[in-house]
Amino acid sequence: MTDHHVIFMPSGKRGRFLTGTPVLTAARQLGVDLDSVCGGRGICSKCQVQPGEGSFSKLGVTVQPGALSDFNSVERRYDEKRGLKPGRRLGCQATIQGDVVIDVPAESQVHRQVVRKAANGIPIVMDPATRLHFVTVEEPDMDAPSGDLERLRDALRAQWNLDDLSVALPLLRQLQPVLRAGKWQVTVAVNHDENRITALYPGLREAPLLGLAIDLGSTTIAAHLCDLTTGKVRASGGVMNPQIRFGEDLMSRVSYSMMNPGGDVEMTNVVRDALDQLAVELAAEAGVDAGDIVESVIVCNPVMHHLLLGVDPVELGQSPFALATSDALRLSASEVGLTSVAVAARVYILPCIAGHVGADAAAVALAEAPDQDDPMTLIVDVGTNAEIILGNRERLLACSSPTGPAFEGAQISAGQRAAPGAIERVEIDPVTKEPRFRVIGSDLWSDDPSFAEATKDSGITGICGSGIIEAVAEMRMAGIVDSKGLIGSPVQVGTSRCELVGRTHSYLLWEDGERRIHVTQGDIRAIQLAKSALYAGARLLMDEAGVDTLDKITLAGAFGAHISPKHAMVLGMIPDAELSHITSAGNAAGHGARMALCNKGARAHIEALVRKIEKIETAVAPRFQEHFVAANAIPHATAPFPHLFAELTLPDVSWNIASEGRRRRR
Amino acid sequence: MTDHHVIFMPSGKRGRFLTGTPVLTAARQLGVDLDSVCGGRGICSKCQVQPGEGSFSKLGVTVQPGALSDFNSVERRYDEKRGLKPGRRLGCQATIQGDVVIDVPAESQVHRQVVRKAANGIPIVMDPATRLHFVTVEEPDMDAPSGDLERLRDALRAQWNLDDLSVALPLLRQLQPVLRAGKWQVTVAVNHDENRITALYPGLREAPLLGLAIDLGSTTIAAHLCDLTTGKVRASGGVMNPQIRFGEDLMSRVSYSMMNPGGDVEMTNVVRDALDQLAVELAAEAGVDAGDIVESVIVCNPVMHHLLLGVDPVELGQSPFALATSDALRLSASEVGLTSVAVAARVYILPCIAGHVGADAAAVALAEAPDQDDPMTLIVDVGTNAEIILGNRERLLACSSPTGPAFEGAQISAGQRAAPGAIERVEIDPVTKEPRFRVIGSDLWSDDPSFAEATKDSGITGICGSGIIEAVAEMRMAGIVDSKGLIGSPVQVGTSRCELVGRTHSYLLWEDGERRIHVTQGDIRAIQLAKSALYAGARLLMDEAGVDTLDKITLAGAFGAHISPKHAMVLGMIPDAELSHITSAGNAAGHGARMALCNKGARAHIEALVRKIEKIETAVAPRFQEHFVAANAIPHATAPFPHLFAELTLPDVSWNIASEGRRRRR
Repeated sequence: MTDHHVIFMPSGKRGRFLTGTPVLTAARQLGVDLDSVCGGRGICSKCQVQPGEGSFSKLGVTVQPGALSDFNSVERRYDEKRGLKPGRRLGCQATIQGDVVIDVPAESQVHRQVVRKAANGIPIVMDPATRLHFVTVEEPDMDAPSGDLERLRDALRAQWNLDDLSVALPLLRQLQPVLRAGKWQVTVAVNHDENRITALYPGLREAPLLGLAIDLGSTTIAAHLCDLTTGKVRASGGVMNPQIRFGEDLMSRVSYSMMNPGGDVEMTNVVRDALDQLAVELAAEAGVDAGDIVESVIVCNPVMHHLLLGVDPVELGQSPFALATSDALRLSASEVGLTSVAVAARVYILPCIAGHVGADAAAVALAEAPDQDDPMTLIVDVGTNAEIILGNRERLLACSSPTGPAFEGAQISAGQRAAPGAIERVEIDPVTKEPRFRVIGSDLWSDDPSFAEATKDSGITGICGSGIIEAVAEMRMAGIVDSKGLIGSPVQVGTSRCELVGRTHSYLLWEDGERRIHVTQGDIRAIQLAKSALYAGARLLMDEAGVDTLDKITLAGAFGAHISPKHAMVLGMIPDAELSHITSAGNAAGHGARMALCNKGARAHIEALVRKIEKIETAVAPRFQEHFVAANAIPHATAPFPHLFAELTLPDVSWNIASEGRRRRR
Repeated sequence: MTDHHVIFMPSGKRGRFLTGTPVLTAARQLGVDLDSVCGGRGICSKCQVQPGEGSFSKLGVTVQPGALSDFNSVERRYDEKRGLKPGRRLGCQATIQGDVVIDVPAESQVHRQVVRKAANGIPIVMDPATRLHFVTVEEPDMDAPSGDLERLRDALRAQWNLDDLSVALPLLRQLQPVLRAGKWQVTVAVNHDENRITALYPGLREAPLLGLAIDLGSTTIAAHLCDLTTGKVRASGGVMNPQIRFGEDLMSRVSYSMMNPGGDVEMTNVVRDALDQLAVELAAEAGVDAGDIVESVIVCNPVMHHLLLGVDPVELGQSPFALATSDALRLSASEVGLTSVAVAARVYILPCIAGHVGADAAAVALAEAPDQDDPMTLIVDVGTNAEIILGNRERLLACSSPTGPAFEGAQISAGQRAAPGAIERVEIDPVTKEPRFRVIGSDLWSDDPSFAEATKDSGITGICGSGIIEAVAEMRMAGIVDSKGLIGSPVQVGTSRCELVGRTHSYLLWEDGERRIHVTQGDIRAIQLAKSALYAGARLLMDEAGVDTLDKITLAGAFGAHISPKHAMVLGMIPDAELSHITSAGNAAGHGARMALCNKGARAHIEALVRKIEKIETAVAPRFQEHFVAANAIPHATAPFPHLFAELTLPDVSWNIASEGRRRRR
């Protein structure tokens, strides 16, 4: 028998095969990424390929007509019933008859790429833990009795080379009816990360399986419902974390647990219910059955982590902030209250880095992948606690810093959550000291003639986190606030917007009759405390890493997406860097969850990486206090900020002597 | 340094050790079975040994005073606080100073033997799956943060060489408080069969752990609460299976499930509740906490098995009798409703042999161990279905036979369960044809002058299974019944106790005024059907094994304990064998459960054995019908029964021609 030259594209893998070899067999022998659910029975159509025609001079092959066999009866029946696109063939049925170049279209590849929208986003390469396997199971035989499960396992071993698969009891209950409904042909969902059967379907399962990537935040729970074959997001959504009623921030929830016996159980129950409800809602939105969700990946901070697991977080509220467990967890979905998903669905929870640096920070590290690049990168995930990661492929360090809730608009006189009506952008004219601003819900600036009309519905309700950062930075840039953070008097600054309120001055940002929005001296102090903590944490990691400059700064988190890099640097929230190298990563934690959901190798990767990350505890580092104090000035008492000052100059003002309020405070 | 000759007894293991070697170290190096929970810290006292003194001429050693070191401070403190028996030493503290013979008392051995009470019982050698390990865990360190669980695992790895232990979520919840209560010293219960942590105790755990061996029968649930260190039974008890209200026998429960949607769930719930309640009651009886039960082993027939697991048993009610799963199962106790035991307790369920031959039959095979002996042994576990095992170390075969409930007193005119007042033994004078009998609750025969007084409370209420077997056999031996099973007329037999009732004769066993207990022609027929099925099953296995004679017959089950071998053989329930080689094994299934509980190697053994057992399905074997028909005669139409007829002669009577009832029936 003659053999033929076969080249698969786009991989370029090539080999010689005898006449009559099925294309799928050739692909498997060469390690070409060609999908198959039915194992070559010609019914799933996942192995579709497209043979080329004519001369491929670069590849040194000319494909003659008839290089693949004609349609056989299986392929013909499939084409008649389901329809094959022109030129497409079933890889398991078409056989090699001559030299041929075979294109594997993206939808026939298991490891297809899913492009990420974020600017610096690396694509997700699909390699889902859960795959479907169609098998024919031997019927029971009284003369050789064995359990249906044992014969299913035999079939998976013989037909897919899968061994020692475990099965949860709730799924065992479905086994006998499913096998009989499928007439001894069933599609088995196997979680290859755990070597476990997670769902059973009679006959060939056509519909894709689904997974849920969950970012369980203290304030918001966000989730993506993903197609586990294509990686496509079928629905996204979020709900408020219902634990908020037990305490706005993490520490107040830990306190609630300490003060109220059983309080942790209450918090566990409400968050589990919320997760399950979110799964149901996203499935409804996507028009699918929540019971088709076979896997979920959850990322969260350590307190959320423990409360989700039902572990009292009390140890996380006190030094030495000991986690009950830090390793990644593989659990049944029902164990964490996901009861509307598939009965044997699994949950993967990313590892925690330290008592203050959770699985969410690990997800950020996974999504941003500083360990796979050379630039010295600082990644900051801003929230009530800021998680900070520094490093590159040589070394990674992490810490958390207690920024407090000021960056989220709490502890700010006119502060509010990011919601329609909240001031999110501010500009102040350095000459007139007059402000203009934008509110969430409108793209217009407040000096636009249509602004009033555009914001009629939302109104102007307060200042959100990014708004207060811009306001303070702009006040500093306009010479309203000095480097120590003091607001000048009307005379000093030269505007009546600086008003004496009590013993300190406030800057009037907006008024409408009775309603007035100020930036007060107290607001400035709150922001100074928060930004000093963040900066000090970053500097501490830089000290440990022995670096003075950064190549790249990534602002992660929903909040990070709205921070203006220039304003953040004027404020001295972050160390100095080239402005164009400061970027937002969007919801990097959520993206990391999606990566771990779509690619099982990402799980092993982050587990190994977390073990390598050097954990720095800010609470006990003596230099943290030093850095914190020096970072109180705006932007900083001593650091030169060369990149910042190459772009702009800050007014050299000082209101200290003249300020009565300041004097009283010393 | 000099070394010394050290001999451990009773193992006789010997070696040479340097001066100063701790006895525990020497024992471990020689592989001597010497227990330790604290790992050599001198606090658990499990490693107590007793050094010999003087000359041991057979061993070739003379032990001088001072062959072991004097009490050190640890041993002295232990002795003062807890008291050491005279001559006893702590093996981890006493060091070798000269030639010595060291006795390891039974209570210091892990693999101590537990003697079985049954006549042919082989002892249980303790090798429990669950062992206690005391560890000192590193305290959390902010500079090297890791979870408490990870540090516990590190400690188990470093101090006990235990790796990759899994922990269930409910136990993780206890971890942090237990570690702190124990000041970072904890005792860990490790299930070595599953490599899993199943309980955590602060400090050194002194009290023994407990396990529950459960024989879940269709009628009765029996359980032994066992000390997992000594194997001692702390409490035993049983309850009725509450599923009885859904159907007396297995098939009526399967029918209930088929006729009533959700009926299987009801039956699952009630049996799980009953198991949990039984655990609580046995713990209370033993004066221990049910929460100290860390393990349970369950044996049961296939229908009970599936209902316990929550699997609808419908497939077991119809050919080909397919089990959902046949392999052994390792589950969390809570998964099968055992919620009062330790939160992370485990359940081991023995493998099923076939759709009609369950984990209970596997337990019988484990307990009786025919695979470890040469005699060709027949084991019969009589119930509504009889499970039959035949073979020896060469080969084992098993089947079940549908005997129906007659042997349990059902379908018998005066039949009843074995309970006080039930006739259990019968003798009939071959000359006068007068009967005497005994009832459960009294040792007196009915012709004893004190019988009436002794049975006043219970009364005489009916005939139980063993009673009807003896009655029919005695009627055959007395010439009241012929070999075809026909009861003769008063004239034929020569006694007015043979009464015409309807168209057939009945034999009057007892009367008291209005109340009369007969053995009717219908009773004889029911017993004939049952015994024919049992005999045919046994013969079928003998055919398959190619044997004509048996070396040994074992009657298992509570009922088997009450059957008289001679009467069983006169009846032809079982094939012919030397009468003295027919023995009762008592509750062999329950004993098998206890073996699997106390010895983890027994689990691997029965799993391998069940795979090797050849399963014969009586329902489809053509020869089963032949054997069944031939076995209808009493004892048998064709089989010679040489051993039986060496002991006795049966009257050669035949009532056929004269019997009107019989004539009408043909």
